[in-house]
Amino acid sequence: MSDVERNKQIVLDYYQTAFGGEPEEAVARYVGDRYVQHNPMAADGTEAFIGFVKWLRSENPELRLDIKRVVAEGDIVVTHANLVLKPGEPGQALADFFRVEDGKVIEHWDVIQDIPATSANNNSMF
Amino acid sequence: MSDVERNKQIVLDYYQTAFGGEPEEAVARYVGDRYVQHNPMAADGTEAFIGFVKWLRSENPELRLDIKRVVAEGDIVVTHANLVLKPGEPGQALADFFRVEDGKVIEHWDVIQDIPATSANNNSMF
Repeated sequence: MSDVERNKQIVLDYYQTAFGGEPEEAVARYVGDRYVQHNPMAADGTEAFIGFVKWLRSENPELRLDIKRVVAEGDIVVTHANLVLKPGEPGQALADFFRVEDGKVIEHWDVIQDIPATSANNNSMF
Repeated sequence: MSDVERNKQIVLDYYQTAFGGEPEEAVARYVGDRYVQHNPMAADGTEAFIGFVKWLRSENPELRLDIKRVVAEGDIVVTHANLVLKPGEPGQALADFFRVEDGKVIEHWDVIQDIPATSANNNSMF
């Protein structure tokens, strides 16, 4: 498996384990010696991330993360995903960028947009 | 130059030419026989894109697009950028996904978020 394919698998496992309800396990298994956070709502480090995911799941026990595509090059893995907090809602479009170093996730950026109820085209946001 | 490197160059030229003020030129040079649009604010096709960029620039003659990173794999190119409409504003974080086929851009998705004035970390959104 190439480094890029391995990085993709690490990020998918990390993201799905965390949002599947085991953020501590996800961090223990997949995060490196630091976690540089660029999401402006979250403090640096893994503690804020774990707390955020736990809070989000406790408020939204039926949340569903659907990763639509993964694009990776070098040490960066990008995911394009739909996060639906409550069934039936369109939810949010998420673009997440992760940096992977020596098999561990060490940096994270994201861009988040609420999916509007209507669209000027018939292609969906994904 | 590999296909992936060529696709990156095409997308960068397309995006910068368009937002630099020449969206018709950008489309004529870089878009293929279709333009599948996933931005929910825009109709399918290139006409809506050209109209949008012209309107945005006429409203914001000093707008600046700063592409921070590019990640490409297969036929997809992802850009992570800061769009500032008026000098001094934090602007928006943009993640754009482009599909390139035979050297032409044929599909576009994006995720857009206003950058908040304050952040819980010191890393910026980029």
